[in-house]
Amino acid sequence: MIIQLSPNVTSEEKKAILAKLDDLKIKANIVSTQFKNYIVGIPKTDFDIRSIGTMKGIADIHCVSDAYKLVSKKWKVNNTIIDLGNNVTIGGKELAIMAGPCSIEGEKQIEHTVQHLLKNNIKIMRGGVYKPRSSPYAFRGMGMDGLKLFYKHCSENGIKVITEVMQVSQVEEMIDYVDIFQVGARNSQNFNLLDALGSVDKAVLIKRGMSGTIEELLASAEYVFSNGNEKIMLCERGIRTFENAYRNTLDLNAVPILKEKSHLPVIVDPSHGIGLRQHVATMALAGVMSGADGIIVEVHENPEIAFSDGQQTLYDGQAESLYKKLRATKELVNSF
Amino acid sequence: MIIQLSPNVTSEEKKAILAKLDDLKIKANIVSTQFKNYIVGIPKTDFDIRSIGTMKGIADIHCVSDAYKLVSKKWKVNNTIIDLGNNVTIGGKELAIMAGPCSIEGEKQIEHTVQHLLKNNIKIMRGGVYKPRSSPYAFRGMGMDGLKLFYKHCSENGIKVITEVMQVSQVEEMIDYVDIFQVGARNSQNFNLLDALGSVDKAVLIKRGMSGTIEELLASAEYVFSNGNEKIMLCERGIRTFENAYRNTLDLNAVPILKEKSHLPVIVDPSHGIGLRQHVATMALAGVMSGADGIIVEVHENPEIAFSDGQQTLYDGQAESLYKKLRATKELVNSF
Amino acid sequence: MIIQLSPNVTSEEKKAILAKLDDLKIKANIVSTQFKNYIVGIPKTDFDIRSIGTMKGIADIHCVSDAYKLVSKKWKVNNTIIDLGNNVTIGGKELAIMAGPCSIEGEKQIEHTVQHLLKNNIKIMRGGVYKPRSSPYAFRGMGMDGLKLFYKHCSENGIKVITEVMQVSQVEEMIDYVDIFQVGARNSQNFNLLDALGSVDKAVLIKRGMSGTIEELLASAEYVFSNGNEKIMLCERGIRTFENAYRNTLDLNAVPILKEKSHLPVIVDPSHGIGLRQHVATMALAGVMSGADGIIVEVHENPEIAFSDGQQTLYDGQAESLYKKLRATKELVNSF
Amino acid sequence: MIIQLSPNVTSEEKKAILAKLDDLKIKANIVSTQFKNYIVGIPKTDFDIRSIGTMKGIADIHCVSDAYKLVSKKWKVNNTIIDLGNNVTIGGKELAIMAGPCSIEGEKQIEHTVQHLLKNNIKIMRGGVYKPRSSPYAFRGMGMDGLKLFYKHCSENGIKVITEVMQVSQVEEMIDYVDIFQVGARNSQNFNLLDALGSVDKAVLIKRGMSGTIEELLASAEYVFSNGNEKIMLCERGIRTFENAYRNTLDLNAVPILKEKSHLPVIVDPSHGIGLRQHVATMALAGVMSGADGIIVEVHENPEIAFSDGQQTLYDGQAESLYKKLRATKELVNSF
Repeated sequence: MIIQLSPNVTSEEKKAILAKLDDLKIKANIVSTQFKNYIVGIPKTDFDIRSIGTMKGIADIHCVSDAYKLVSKKWKVNNTIIDLGNNVTIGGKELAIMAGPCSIEGEKQIEHTVQHLLKNNIKIMRGGVYKPRSSPYAFRGMGMDGLKLFYKHCSENGIKVITEVMQVSQVEEMIDYVDIFQVGARNSQNFNLLDALGSVDKAVLIKRGMSGTIEELLASAEYVFSNGNEKIMLCERGIRTFENAYRNTLDLNAVPILKEKSHLPVIVDPSHGIGLRQHVATMALAGVMSGADGIIVEVHENPEIAFSDGQQTLYDGQAESLYKKLRATKELVNSF
Repeated sequence: MIIQLSPNVTSEEKKAILAKLDDLKIKANIVSTQFKNYIVGIPKTDFDIRSIGTMKGIADIHCVSDAYKLVSKKWKVNNTIIDLGNNVTIGGKELAIMAGPCSIEGEKQIEHTVQHLLKNNIKIMRGGVYKPRSSPYAFRGMGMDGLKLFYKHCSENGIKVITEVMQVSQVEEMIDYVDIFQVGARNSQNFNLLDALGSVDKAVLIKRGMSGTIEELLASAEYVFSNGNEKIMLCERGIRTFENAYRNTLDLNAVPILKEKSHLPVIVDPSHGIGLRQHVATMALAGVMSGADGIIVEVHENPEIAFSDGQQTLYDGQAESLYKKLRATKELVNSF
Repeated sequence: MIIQLSPNVTSEEKKAILAKLDDLKIKANIVSTQFKNYIVGIPKTDFDIRSIGTMKGIADIHCVSDAYKLVSKKWKVNNTIIDLGNNVTIGGKELAIMAGPCSIEGEKQIEHTVQHLLKNNIKIMRGGVYKPRSSPYAFRGMGMDGLKLFYKHCSENGIKVITEVMQVSQVEEMIDYVDIFQVGARNSQNFNLLDALGSVDKAVLIKRGMSGTIEELLASAEYVFSNGNEKIMLCERGIRTFENAYRNTLDLNAVPILKEKSHLPVIVDPSHGIGLRQHVATMALAGVMSGADGIIVEVHENPEIAFSDGQQTLYDGQAESLYKKLRATKELVNSF
Repeated sequence: MIIQLSPNVTSEEKKAILAKLDDLKIKANIVSTQFKNYIVGIPKTDFDIRSIGTMKGIADIHCVSDAYKLVSKKWKVNNTIIDLGNNVTIGGKELAIMAGPCSIEGEKQIEHTVQHLLKNNIKIMRGGVYKPRSSPYAFRGMGMDGLKLFYKHCSENGIKVITEVMQVSQVEEMIDYVDIFQVGARNSQNFNLLDALGSVDKAVLIKRGMSGTIEELLASAEYVFSNGNEKIMLCERGIRTFENAYRNTLDLNAVPILKEKSHLPVIVDPSHGIGLRQHVATMALAGVMSGADGIIVEVHENPEIAFSDGQQTLYDGQAESLYKKLRATKELVNSF
């Protein structure tokens, strides 16, 4: 059960509502986000919603039977649109395109990428500075030095920054240099990290775990929302199956199902989703056709010498051709 | 290694080629299809292709290192177009749409479906008369009686028939009433059935197995081709994974990869691929965007009372809306 | 619902029971096996079992809510013991060991294996004469010539024969030379083959499909039983997962669950279940500890030159060591 | 390449070795554990090991081609035995049994469990105080208050404590109250956490991720070792597959393979590995037979009212019966 509190709810009214819930043996979770105030009630048994609904201080009340509550479409029918400022939004009619290298490698690379994005009217740049790597001996990213350079060049050019955060202590460190925090597939159920990201006012993109179910992805988003942050995107990036002809199995079924179950924007990552450069563009387009609100894609001036993920990274020219097709495809979807 | 023989190769020349292969300890498989004659050579060690290439009776010769040979794109760069007669082709610029019920249920249902297809200019009707069912107590199809009715109404209206064949003995029985034999996911590695379908001159659609790899699907197609039948389609219909939010995981990654590896047309089955009626159309469209040559989709006058698979079957109206979008999407893909 | 008919039920009584079921709108499936007569009723709605239970000709009646009926433990609490004659049984206190090569390769190989089995008091020899192979160009088995030699040497030495049958037409051909028909993983849902094996009086071992669920394996066994054959074994041989460190993921969880759900004997195949010779013995022993009634294992005089599956095949000496450990382990399990 | 340094290596010698590696363009990782000093060299190209092997200060040098190095069996042939003090060891002839509730719930529960363990001569108690839960609204553990009680009662009775750590900041907080840090399946690739656990002198048990490969588990262990901690256990707890008849697919194949590839002890968790109380004991025994060095199992005075995982938790009586069988099985394995 989700209780939306009135904007001008008094502390007396709030107390009365909590007392009532206590009476009904409903566990109450108080949620205050950057936008609104809610109480999420977890009842142990059936109860009559009318006994609460008429109380003062309540704007609206909804039963949500799903395991996830605040991220469910059952109480919020309209799709969430995330506003990053400077007219950059995610979740509306326009396709959000996020492009850039797997890893931030240095200033020259950043400058080159920014020019590429400006030329193609792309408003969000991706790039990792903390890299989760299977082996401790692999390149683990440029860290804060890289991030500061990354953010400087982007913010000077009106481009938003998305980058991966790997642990709680990094959130505070990174917050001034990030527009969207990315939670990687390996951290999709790192609940402490999700808690921490719920208490900041920055957009969060959560990648589905390698063997994460759609339910689990929504539950992870619930962690962020219930800690106070409504700016959440869900990202399908391929799951792990028996097939070895490619890197991951891009599960486009997940897109319409996530859009049906949740009001949150859904982003598709075709680079990790298939992992083979020659097919990334095709799967990006299929992702848009499946209903994605955005695409996150790896592009590099020279993928052959990229520090990581080169085999799935587009050349600039390939990316430019893709951007045009993505927009044409989104236009067709909008016309349906 | 694939040796394409000249159309007018003499038996003397053929003997000489086989003797040469024997000398080189290359196992030779003689393949005669409805179109051409080949020898597939499986060498145990490296050899010099020039020692064979200049022999009389040889039109062309190719090294194919894949486990599958005749279905590989390495020797046949142009996509195969299957001609079903009456201007119905699969594999060219036009999207092939196959629609109809899961099970053939009776004459009225057939007539209704035929009218639906005619109205929408759909030229291929699907419908099962032999149904593979997990339980022996479930409805197992109308059998030959159903097929004869099915074929009668379709052929009278210029519509081609695709239906599943489950075992070798049915091939001969069904052949006069079928335009495309469908091999189901559970029979994707029924090698005796594939052998038998290789010796008839009817198109064959092979569904990928529930946990069949892309390599295995191509190897199954190789069974049909190497037994003499070049009219083969590959069908992606969803694989089995850990996710339970839908019936199967439609693996659209497989489409561009199959198109890259093989010259055969690729068909997508969104009905089984997601198994939820409300999302079938979306996944069909995503399938076209991923490069499919055709779509096979379940439609029924009244899915609620369908004998099988009702939950994933479209209503007529939903299907009509889908056909238009499918064609618009294919047009966009062609324009890229 | 399973109705066990009295041994001396009259045709009048049978008619009355069927009429009663028809009245209750319960679909009746008459099952006559080599041992008993049953009617399997599939009710569409709830009904009162007492209205049938007292009718003449009925020995016993049981509600079975599972999708599978006759193979369920819900009506037959005692484990099935399959008697192959000559004191060879499967499903009792003694562990059944089936050993031999992947493929039958010739008379010398058969003779050698028979001597190996006699020396170790193994009573069942495995060996394939029809081999399902991914590629049409691979060795596909010696066929009936091989089977006749195989059976001749075994029967002369009191050893039972288990071998794979791949299609319906082979059942009749092979029946005089086989003690146990093996249904391979790829044919685990070949329902026509299962139907055919239900109508003969030979034991049948059904391997679980590569991505077959436990429910599906039981449903496949139900095909055989409901067609008239009670001599069925279930075989766990590894499933297909994301892990590539071995060939298949041997699912030993399936063993106690199959034993809980069904009265049929359960066999473990560690050779395919891990696919690495150095670990086959360990997994065979773990299989026994998980509750298996028998083990089927590949052994060859010289695995390095075996026609197929050499990498997972034991040397004679390794096998001999394993047999002793298997028996010691079964003894420990029996003592618990 | 692993260079084991001499116990009395001088800083001069060390410098010379590093300079030599630099010359050879071999990236050098200096590793100092609680026991020894190593340099792990990651060469980019082939080189002659003899050019280094004779340098002063080097005790031994090994080529290790695996992606993981220090945890590989290629350089350390003897199995690692972890000594927890008070004669509690893991990895030797005796089976390590860790038992206790899923969650620590209060002092009475702790006292009851300690008595149960003492009675059965079990020396390690499990129990969670920080619980990773899919839903933010579920019970998330008693935290430090619970841990302090847990440790107090155990240490007073000579019982060692294993409990899950979920994030870096908890390591320091918990360290005085823990004998073994457990890394949960969802944190199996939380590299920051693994780094942190590498810098403390406490044993670490790393659970395999839900879809973690065997290679990835070993790479995670490499994170801990290369940061300075050699006291590592690997834990197989079931992987995620398509099968739904149980909670997870216990992958016992992983046990002999981990033992072959690594010198670290391997623990099996049958409680999560099958998730059904009635089969936990069977799978624990199969785990020992597959070569496990230890078993971690959930037991509770009254599983029906346990705060979490009740359905897979043993009653005291079931556990007592299991402990006896576990020891008898280990004895049999040792005798082989």
